[in-house]
Amino acid sequence: MHGIAATSLTAAMQRIAADIDHQFDLLLPLPEDPRRPLYEAMRHAAIGGGKRLRPLLVCAAADLFLVDRQAALRVGTAIECIHVYSLIHDDLPAMDDDDLRRGKPTVHKAFGEATAILAGDSLHALAFELLADERTHADPFVRAELCLELARASGPSGMAGGQMMDLAAEQALFDLPTVTRLQQLKTGALISVSLEAGAILGRVPPEGRTGLRAYARNLGLAFQIADDLIDAEGTAEAAGKAVGKDAAAGKATFIGHLGREQARAQAEMLVEQAIAHLNSFGEKADLLRALARYTIARDR
Amino acid sequence: MHGIAATSLTAAMQRIAADIDHQFDLLLPLPEDPRRPLYEAMRHAAIGGGKRLRPLLVCAAADLFLVDRQAALRVGTAIECIHVYSLIHDDLPAMDDDDLRRGKPTVHKAFGEATAILAGDSLHALAFELLADERTHADPFVRAELCLELARASGPSGMAGGQMMDLAAEQALFDLPTVTRLQQLKTGALISVSLEAGAILGRVPPEGRTGLRAYARNLGLAFQIADDLIDAEGTAEAAGKAVGKDAAAGKATFIGHLGREQARAQAEMLVEQAIAHLNSFGEKADLLRALARYTIARDR
Repeated sequence: MHGIAATSLTAAMQRIAADIDHQFDLLLPLPEDPRRPLYEAMRHAAIGGGKRLRPLLVCAAADLFLVDRQAALRVGTAIECIHVYSLIHDDLPAMDDDDLRRGKPTVHKAFGEATAILAGDSLHALAFELLADERTHADPFVRAELCLELARASGPSGMAGGQMMDLAAEQALFDLPTVTRLQQLKTGALISVSLEAGAILGRVPPEGRTGLRAYARNLGLAFQIADDLIDAEGTAEAAGKAVGKDAAAGKATFIGHLGREQARAQAEMLVEQAIAHLNSFGEKADLLRALARYTIARDR
Repeated sequence: MHGIAATSLTAAMQRIAADIDHQFDLLLPLPEDPRRPLYEAMRHAAIGGGKRLRPLLVCAAADLFLVDRQAALRVGTAIECIHVYSLIHDDLPAMDDDDLRRGKPTVHKAFGEATAILAGDSLHALAFELLADERTHADPFVRAELCLELARASGPSGMAGGQMMDLAAEQALFDLPTVTRLQQLKTGALISVSLEAGAILGRVPPEGRTGLRAYARNLGLAFQIADDLIDAEGTAEAAGKAVGKDAAAGKATFIGHLGREQARAQAEMLVEQAIAHLNSFGEKADLLRALARYTIARDR
């Protein structure tokens, strides 16, 4: 069954949220041994929260190429494993020191720091276990390519590198190109690999992925500018996490460089550009179009 | 060029140490951007230290099947990435809180906790980037199988699960079977996957790996008992890290259950059993035999 029936974005978001929760529930049964708190911590972080934007991007891109939904879901779950592990580690006292995530206590608040570090590491490994498993895809070339792209997107030249730049941003006031580069690594790389994974599952050769890659790049930046606006204008209740932290830490952001109005205009332009790159897909890409518009219209 | 010429264990250990340092040096050039401290921290942890036991096991097993040494080296480097990341995270204040590792300051002492967490995460991702890269092996089936086995060995049902049990060991006094299980996960899984990887590179089907797997299981336990003896009897200078920590933490160990003399006898028996499982390989396995004997004759 493909996701084409889910015409409305709201329905697609509800469906992916239920599907990803179900995947994690199956993947993380509680063991009857001393590893139990580790699995409890992984379930606490992975189940019952988040917009599941990345899995939805995988499924929406996979739908363009009529990929089996179960394969797309498993790949989406793998990418969500990386996203969740990064949140767990990012929330640690030595990093952002957050108490609240998705409206719940952060993992180290609920289970202690040591268990939180290990829960993040475990989800990190689980991502690659999922991608490399023949139950995800029968073709080993697809499995190996998924592993390679996710490793690149999450490692020191992707997400982890962006987080390092984010740490450095507290000491140095970055210019706009450097802020852009930071965000492309920190959040953009994982958003891009989500769309790329849909194309890999659809056996689209690299030269056929240009449109999706351009969509992903614009979407990632629009998403981050919107996140900056939430951080600057929102409340902790609406965001499900602490807000106002970038300003307090003195970090350069898109808003700091552009001001709120111009930042908002920039995000809207990026969304229009993202959508323009989907033209060749016709109506099949309506979910990706709706998703792009949604990124800048989220709750503040 | 294969490693058969390196007949003596000492020569093989010196060669692998130089080769792995060289691999990491090539893989981790310092970037001219704010990610530089991340790469410095990765290099600090990964280059110039350690016995490189796991890469040596990969190469020694791969030599049994005449595997190209460069492929074995890259896979050994990937497994060493996992080992080094686990040491970085294990040394953190929230975990073992160690100041000294391989005779140098631990990563968080030298670079701060946040950078240490990210350096561990980055080496974790780098491991899979290496395994999934076609420059490591041309056959995608081999690459996917390597990714799958390493993810399993390092995740919650492998190394990370063992580390969770180790945390729990401070609260509950584990019986001998539970201590054995803990060590099989915490250190045994990564030792086992090192030998398995040599067989995978040699395209040995799973049913042909029985002897190597039995060797690995015995070797892993012997290695851990020897490590317990070093922790109980050694000096920080010889070990290159703090010693006497298990007893201070009140953890159950092999020595706690068996006493030093019986633990030593047990380790010697495990080494003999490990060696017996290599019979079918003849002289080709002499390096693996020497390695097994070495594990219990290391500096105290």
